[in-house]
Amino acid sequence: MLLPQINDPQQLKSYSVGELAVLAEEIRQFLIEKLSVTGGHLGSNLGVVELTLALHYCYDSPRDKMIYDVGHQAYVHKILTGRQDRFDTLRKQGGLCGFVKRTESEHDVWEAGHSSTSLSAAMGMAMARDLKGEDNKVIAVIGDGALTGGMAFEALNHIGHERRKLMVILNDNEMSIAPNVGAMHNYLSKIRSDRHYLRAKDEVEGLLKKIPAIGGRLAKTAQNVKDGLKNMLVPGVLFEELGFTYLGPVDGHDLEKMIDTFHQADNVSGPVLVHVLTTKGKGYKPAETDFYKSHAISPYKIESSQSIKAVEAVSHPMYTEVFGETLIELGRQDQRLIAVTPAMPGGSGLFPFAKEFPDRMIDVGIAEQHAATLCAALAMEGMKPVYAVYSTFMQRAYDQIVHDICRHNANVMFAIDRAGFVGADGETHQGVYDIAFMRHIPNMVLMMPKDENELRHMMKTALDYNEGPIAYRYPRINGTGVALDAELRSLPIGTWERLRPGEDYAVLACGPMVQVAEEAAEVLKREGIQIGVVNARFLKPLDNTMLLELAHAGTGMVVLEEASQAGSLGSAVLEFFAEHEIYDAHVHPMGVPDIFVEHGSIKEQRQETGLTVEAVCARIKSMKGLSTYTYKSTSTS
Amino acid sequence: MLLPQINDPQQLKSYSVGELAVLAEEIRQFLIEKLSVTGGHLGSNLGVVELTLALHYCYDSPRDKMIYDVGHQAYVHKILTGRQDRFDTLRKQGGLCGFVKRTESEHDVWEAGHSSTSLSAAMGMAMARDLKGEDNKVIAVIGDGALTGGMAFEALNHIGHERRKLMVILNDNEMSIAPNVGAMHNYLSKIRSDRHYLRAKDEVEGLLKKIPAIGGRLAKTAQNVKDGLKNMLVPGVLFEELGFTYLGPVDGHDLEKMIDTFHQADNVSGPVLVHVLTTKGKGYKPAETDFYKSHAISPYKIESSQSIKAVEAVSHPMYTEVFGETLIELGRQDQRLIAVTPAMPGGSGLFPFAKEFPDRMIDVGIAEQHAATLCAALAMEGMKPVYAVYSTFMQRAYDQIVHDICRHNANVMFAIDRAGFVGADGETHQGVYDIAFMRHIPNMVLMMPKDENELRHMMKTALDYNEGPIAYRYPRINGTGVALDAELRSLPIGTWERLRPGEDYAVLACGPMVQVAEEAAEVLKREGIQIGVVNARFLKPLDNTMLLELAHAGTGMVVLEEASQAGSLGSAVLEFFAEHEIYDAHVHPMGVPDIFVEHGSIKEQRQETGLTVEAVCARIKSMKGLSTYTYKSTSTS
Repeated sequence: MLLPQINDPQQLKSYSVGELAVLAEEIRQFLIEKLSVTGGHLGSNLGVVELTLALHYCYDSPRDKMIYDVGHQAYVHKILTGRQDRFDTLRKQGGLCGFVKRTESEHDVWEAGHSSTSLSAAMGMAMARDLKGEDNKVIAVIGDGALTGGMAFEALNHIGHERRKLMVILNDNEMSIAPNVGAMHNYLSKIRSDRHYLRAKDEVEGLLKKIPAIGGRLAKTAQNVKDGLKNMLVPGVLFEELGFTYLGPVDGHDLEKMIDTFHQADNVSGPVLVHVLTTKGKGYKPAETDFYKSHAISPYKIESSQSIKAVEAVSHPMYTEVFGETLIELGRQDQRLIAVTPAMPGGSGLFPFAKEFPDRMIDVGIAEQHAATLCAALAMEGMKPVYAVYSTFMQRAYDQIVHDICRHNANVMFAIDRAGFVGADGETHQGVYDIAFMRHIPNMVLMMPKDENELRHMMKTALDYNEGPIAYRYPRINGTGVALDAELRSLPIGTWERLRPGEDYAVLACGPMVQVAEEAAEVLKREGIQIGVVNARFLKPLDNTMLLELAHAGTGMVVLEEASQAGSLGSAVLEFFAEHEIYDAHVHPMGVPDIFVEHGSIKEQRQETGLTVEAVCARIKSMKGLSTYTYKSTSTS
Repeated sequence: MLLPQINDPQQLKSYSVGELAVLAEEIRQFLIEKLSVTGGHLGSNLGVVELTLALHYCYDSPRDKMIYDVGHQAYVHKILTGRQDRFDTLRKQGGLCGFVKRTESEHDVWEAGHSSTSLSAAMGMAMARDLKGEDNKVIAVIGDGALTGGMAFEALNHIGHERRKLMVILNDNEMSIAPNVGAMHNYLSKIRSDRHYLRAKDEVEGLLKKIPAIGGRLAKTAQNVKDGLKNMLVPGVLFEELGFTYLGPVDGHDLEKMIDTFHQADNVSGPVLVHVLTTKGKGYKPAETDFYKSHAISPYKIESSQSIKAVEAVSHPMYTEVFGETLIELGRQDQRLIAVTPAMPGGSGLFPFAKEFPDRMIDVGIAEQHAATLCAALAMEGMKPVYAVYSTFMQRAYDQIVHDICRHNANVMFAIDRAGFVGADGETHQGVYDIAFMRHIPNMVLMMPKDENELRHMMKTALDYNEGPIAYRYPRINGTGVALDAELRSLPIGTWERLRPGEDYAVLACGPMVQVAEEAAEVLKREGIQIGVVNARFLKPLDNTMLLELAHAGTGMVVLEEASQAGSLGSAVLEFFAEHEIYDAHVHPMGVPDIFVEHGSIKEQRQETGLTVEAVCARIKSMKGLSTYTYKSTSTS
């Protein structure tokens, strides 16, 4: 075994290509075995085994900067840079991060979790290098899916103009998480299928020789013809036109060819794009064939690739599934309903809808900005688009939500999935900011259901609402298992729900925190403390009537939310009382503190941030001394 | 005169091309005269006179949807659609909007102020049309500058894939506001200069005939050669590769040629891109030659094009100018300092810096996302980048600020210009959300100076700070005329400044609102009411010590800010007291209410939103009855 001896990528330099190939197989086995226990991004990492080996063989990390777009395909890089022994802890709290992580290793120079950032990062590092008069290499590895993100194009446009020396590896596996859509994808497919062009080169040159020598008036035209032929021979004309030298396509599982191509690239003075063709899941049949499951997966049985579900796991449906199924019901009722997803048809639970309404499910690729503005235009033409998007990725569309959706007051519905903590994906994917970045935008209505049944009613509410944008956000967890009402109804906008009476104290909670509040109330009840629980299901507008009632009754309020404590529901409640000049409403915000919360289980993340039954009980008890204040405001307008 | 008779674009249908040309000249004169009084976007509108005429001649607005990217080049469209008589009110409160405005006319189908949204809008409208079974045309007019924005590429990628019928007019004037940068620009320039290719077509065909007839093994190669030649003859191969039919380039001041090309485009089944070459400022010499001044301009003398400055205008330097000059001082002291701008080198006051440090001023084009991530990478490699950006455009980079800058805790400095109201540009450009969308991001430090001298110290503070991202925001107005300290010093992070003592009430204000607070204090003093004024110059972190002192003293606090009342400084202060369980600190937020504030003067916008001396005085007086409460919190931790 070669692999156990590797703890520094410098060791690879003395290997033969044959030994590297042996190592590649060992790494594959390592990944298949380790990830069968921990879960993780198996397919994308199996696809880049040879590519990563070739990079570390040809370049000197960390002196040469290797930047992995998204960073979930850096497991092989982690294995080669001294982190083999930590793979049992992958994506666990305190363990190895599923993405590139600067605190883990000097070889990790750029962190990401969102796509399409690597080209900008590479440009910044190349620019800093030149300004400092250094001469290291800068290498960005980007997938064909990530290349469709708008910021990747912004970077291509800048790099191709400035022409600094840097290398872009286009890791083309013909898909991102879902099969790629888009004209760029079609273009790359054409290059793939046109590989015979390269082999035809000799034939073309023979053909050119048959053209008689031409002088005089036609000389320039003849030169143009030759240039045209050259373009035809270079499959990456699009990249060439944007200022890159294009090399490839090269087989990303052929070490020798890749190493040759990298050497060739080193001799190019400006930016070079190496087009590498890889197979996602390479070497593990189930991952090669089952596209979706091969992205981020749970622990599995190696032979069958079947997921090993924890026996104790509750099998209540995920919110995502309930969303997907309910959307079909609504789609049958209303022809105007269209679903829009930025490359997450599976993750967002949209496959069943797409199957029934193929014309009304639009996957725009990794393009959160375009998706938002597209929804605005669809709405303005009388459609009812639902923008299905993860909270964390919606951050990309903030400006479009302000400028194109809310300013136009367009009837766009938002289905914000993965709102709150996301567990193993960690700090790049936490959905804890959307309340804070949506709430201050005029015209926005924002909801969060206490359970999957209420999610269904919120979806109906959104469809019935025709006065502007409206959003419902829901977590990446199983529902509570509540019975689902057959008939859907609209909730009155801006109304909360009192779930449990309580004079002295009440917890105003939203989403899964309602359940936490209920459990805390049960615990406290056993200790003789009666607290109220309010389902604060509208985050904007608030339930003004209920807030005034609570203040009048002198009820101390804990506002409990799995969202940034700054700027979210707690702040909204504080603002409400300040605007109404009610100064003695005691409000205790409990949200996510001002830190990035790292990977672990959702339970651990709640513990880390104090969003638990125990923490709520402790907070209520600490308030006991404050319960004597009375309502004495001069204004309740 | 033909122009005065036009009040509906349908009238154009009966005109001859010769009459349209006469009309074009009349429109030009109209624009030059009207804008000499009102100011506005002269150059870009002079450039599209014939283009707009040709569009309205060939298509049926509003049935056919005409979508203008950014929308500041729609003056001609407004003239032709019945709004001639309102041009005296252009960009004034209650008057004609400087951008497309749906409430103004049924011909205005898409509003924008930010760039690069038109292609997504067109795609949405084309998709809705097809779903509804209608057959109207959808036409997006986009500048070559706007085409570099990432979301435009996301849309191109989607449109080219779906291949729905729609028309993109690429209005190529070789510049956006500043001369364009980027590989796409270089590519378009190449097409411009390669126009002889088109004329050489016959010659090439002659050449092809000289190639002997080829059969057998070489037949496919020969076909490939012909395809290659065809690509060579089509200058827009990049767009063709992305799935568009490319037509052009066509002279955008030649009505006949444009009309012909549009008819040609109508016969194309999928998406078509018509490349139109225009000259910004066409027909008004000063605007043709003076690139920067020809964007949005103040009233001017027609003969000389000299700006007519209001005699009473104070000539204190703009904050933008002070920023630009101070940046040079700092650039001389610190080699690490680099300025990054997304296509706003002039507007951001960076020309003097660029002149002295050409290698350290980076214009990335319209690419706010790339600019932010580029800054993160520069910082991680030891540079001190300053991201100079307008508040409203920074909205585009929200995700990159969270994910790439703050999560990496990178030493990026932000110079946020146009923070607060912006006047005539109106609701698409208001800089009122950046506090609310930045404050909840971990690691961020956020400042706003009370005057231009303090701005200089904040710039020094940011340069000296090496613990993560730090931002200073400043308004689009003249400074107060305060003396500028020669020596720059660092402000202690999280410290406010008490400018005026006052026990019972204090106004905590930031930026230009400090001056409003001071003036209010003077007015109240004359009425015998003494109030304190605090310069709340750090928006994050707050000055905890001072807040606790104010609470202890029982001082009622008005928090005054030209920023979204939801989520900004007022909320931060409320959160602080709630987190410290101080329930009797009376806090009165005064910020921008939950509406989009339309165009007008900044003074009018402050009046509309109650951010004036009078409003502060009234608020303080209304608080008189509340001044008897005393501090009785149990915790001041």
